[in-house]
Amino acid sequence: MTAPLGNSRDQALQDRARHVIPNGMWGHMATRAITPGYPQFFSRADGCRVWDADGNGYIDFMCAWGPNVLGYHHPEVDAAALRQLQVVDSGNGPTETLVELAETLTPTLAHADWCLFQKNGTDATTACVTIARAGTGRRKVIMAKGAYHGAVPWCSPSVIGVTTEDRAHLITFDWGDTASLDAAVAQAGDDLAAIILTAFRHDVGRDQEMPTRDFLTAARTHCDRTGAMLICDDVRAGFRLDVRGSWAVHGVKPDLAAYSKAIANGWPLAAIAGADRAREGAEKIFTTGSFWYGAAAMAAGLATVRILRDTDALAHTEAMGNRFRKGLDEAAARHGYRLRQTGPVQMPMVLVDGDQDLRIGNALCLAALRHGVYLHPKHNMFLCAAHTAADIDRAVEGVDRAFADIAAAGVVPA
Amino acid sequence: MTAPLGNSRDQALQDRARHVIPNGMWGHMATRAITPGYPQFFSRADGCRVWDADGNGYIDFMCAWGPNVLGYHHPEVDAAALRQLQVVDSGNGPTETLVELAETLTPTLAHADWCLFQKNGTDATTACVTIARAGTGRRKVIMAKGAYHGAVPWCSPSVIGVTTEDRAHLITFDWGDTASLDAAVAQAGDDLAAIILTAFRHDVGRDQEMPTRDFLTAARTHCDRTGAMLICDDVRAGFRLDVRGSWAVHGVKPDLAAYSKAIANGWPLAAIAGADRAREGAEKIFTTGSFWYGAAAMAAGLATVRILRDTDALAHTEAMGNRFRKGLDEAAARHGYRLRQTGPVQMPMVLVDGDQDLRIGNALCLAALRHGVYLHPKHNMFLCAAHTAADIDRAVEGVDRAFADIAAAGVVPA
Repeated sequence: MTAPLGNSRDQALQDRARHVIPNGMWGHMATRAITPGYPQFFSRADGCRVWDADGNGYIDFMCAWGPNVLGYHHPEVDAAALRQLQVVDSGNGPTETLVELAETLTPTLAHADWCLFQKNGTDATTACVTIARAGTGRRKVIMAKGAYHGAVPWCSPSVIGVTTEDRAHLITFDWGDTASLDAAVAQAGDDLAAIILTAFRHDVGRDQEMPTRDFLTAARTHCDRTGAMLICDDVRAGFRLDVRGSWAVHGVKPDLAAYSKAIANGWPLAAIAGADRAREGAEKIFTTGSFWYGAAAMAAGLATVRILRDTDALAHTEAMGNRFRKGLDEAAARHGYRLRQTGPVQMPMVLVDGDQDLRIGNALCLAALRHGVYLHPKHNMFLCAAHTAADIDRAVEGVDRAFADIAAAGVVPA
Repeated sequence: MTAPLGNSRDQALQDRARHVIPNGMWGHMATRAITPGYPQFFSRADGCRVWDADGNGYIDFMCAWGPNVLGYHHPEVDAAALRQLQVVDSGNGPTETLVELAETLTPTLAHADWCLFQKNGTDATTACVTIARAGTGRRKVIMAKGAYHGAVPWCSPSVIGVTTEDRAHLITFDWGDTASLDAAVAQAGDDLAAIILTAFRHDVGRDQEMPTRDFLTAARTHCDRTGAMLICDDVRAGFRLDVRGSWAVHGVKPDLAAYSKAIANGWPLAAIAGADRAREGAEKIFTTGSFWYGAAAMAAGLATVRILRDTDALAHTEAMGNRFRKGLDEAAARHGYRLRQTGPVQMPMVLVDGDQDLRIGNALCLAALRHGVYLHPKHNMFLCAAHTAADIDRAVEGVDRAFADIAAAGVVPA
């Protein structure tokens, strides 16, 4: 087995952090939620590579948990944002870039007639729900059990500090199950404001599922029949799978869609794109934030969306995803393992078959770190347009060595 | 009266925006919420000046509605952020800057033992409430009637699209009224999780009020007695009045405080600073966002806080505020008007006495625009450290001319 990576600087930072940050770190980037041994602090990123605080470099398959879609430090995106920063970012109002971005997004997204902008994906999903309630005058919101729509009381995966009333009008159903959705709609009666669905099923720690056209059509039909709004939470998948929106390929249009993460290649931006059917609700509500009108992130977003629209960046990413999936399957087989790789290849979930408690996945990912590959054992990963065939091959080679390491250590299915 | 400003470019942008943005603009930066005639779009900002889309320049007293505290494009702040951008902004985890920022804030803020970071002020206030509920195991939250704590369902100034249940555990009282607070605490019984108060009373369209030490002490005592958390919503005032936190001067420490706006001089950042009393709650909850760990805004925040701590920037801003207040009073008197100027001079609320319907204030502010001064008729304004005595004098001269204009036009108290 390869020697452990140097981590003295990371450990020192973690020790300091424990004094001034609850638990030493919080949220989805707290590495204790992955498995002990991951570096917590980073010092550099470039293209498809990241370096931890101790200078260990990795071919990166988390892409900042989604924001990096074109490669860290994409020259055109960063140049556009920096040009905007030199004139004005946050001022007393927006700049022309806001209008250009909205004018660029609405014809690009299959369903969109208008846009609003925010900072967090949660800002966008929360405002989508508020818009739906304002537009319909109703209260019930249907969401899938276990789906992640953000980290505020109405939808947080943790109910600690949340009251029962925060979720009083939520009705849950089983993702992808049309009969379960029908029952939820029936339960909502004449009070259904919205059905909110992630672009595909990308819950932590389980096989991902793509929506069937029948399932999405059922949701669309329920909304058409009842007057409710169909919301696509495309925060995680948007602008990574399809620049037209993640359901365009299925031919189903949401009334409202929430975007963030990849929309500005790492610059902080979120967006709601709505159909005219949802415009009245959007015109009624009050939603805002101090930095939502900041022009630098919008300039980055405009550059990102144009590149995604006008180049083969996403097709290339998909090809690299297919190459990675195939390479991982072959590497696993060489060492007697079998993988369950699910969901879109650009956002792979890679689980080891027979690995009930993630013992194997955790060991594999820790070993991969030592071979210069940054994976995640239970969250979907992300590829970006900066991954080259050589990067993928080098990463597969690293994972192959990681399989050899864990096989040699006897970490195999029970 | 001076000729109206050129606004053809702004009008053209507004026309385009109406197609792709609900109502053409949303939130606090929608100028229709001020009064018709304000420019909606901006093209440049520098120091204490902003330029609208048509190139009209103004001495600015809104400071991006708060974020600009040291002057737009402060060289040290922007250089720190740009240096960080060149290595990594959003990566797979935070950088050392996160630790440095938390280590810098905790001894600087009078009450703080730890920090968490976000993007929006609303992220911080919402998580403060969740932390208080998690730490106490209770539900009720007391807030002042009419106070602004953000724009999400639990606290939005608009109830359109909001359900009754979103506010089921809110109890309101009259800001600054100790007896009213006592009654609210009694109503909460043994279920009081938190009292949340803005740093001072800065509601739109009414005279501002500073808290008395007695009032803050009463709130503190209630929390000590009941085990509830005292939350200071310092989003708007924090890092503009006092780098130690806006209640330091009153000698009252909150358990949790929310910051945003000025903390990084316009770069998108928010923070919660908590006392050890609130740490357990903070360790229990799940709160996160895609860009909350971004290092560029943290580098900007670190530079901003150090400058505010180590220089006379805030004392200078206060001196400029006093100069502006005196100048405005004298200008008003010269033309037969009387102003009600309330709250801290760095965040002035300027209302015209006898102006029930804002007819005079709106006319005055529109006239001031034509004389190169950007004021707000009903929201508190903001000064920054880039305002020089010459800027203030030039602005007072512009407002003097604006008074002359409206007096000549017969816009006087009924």
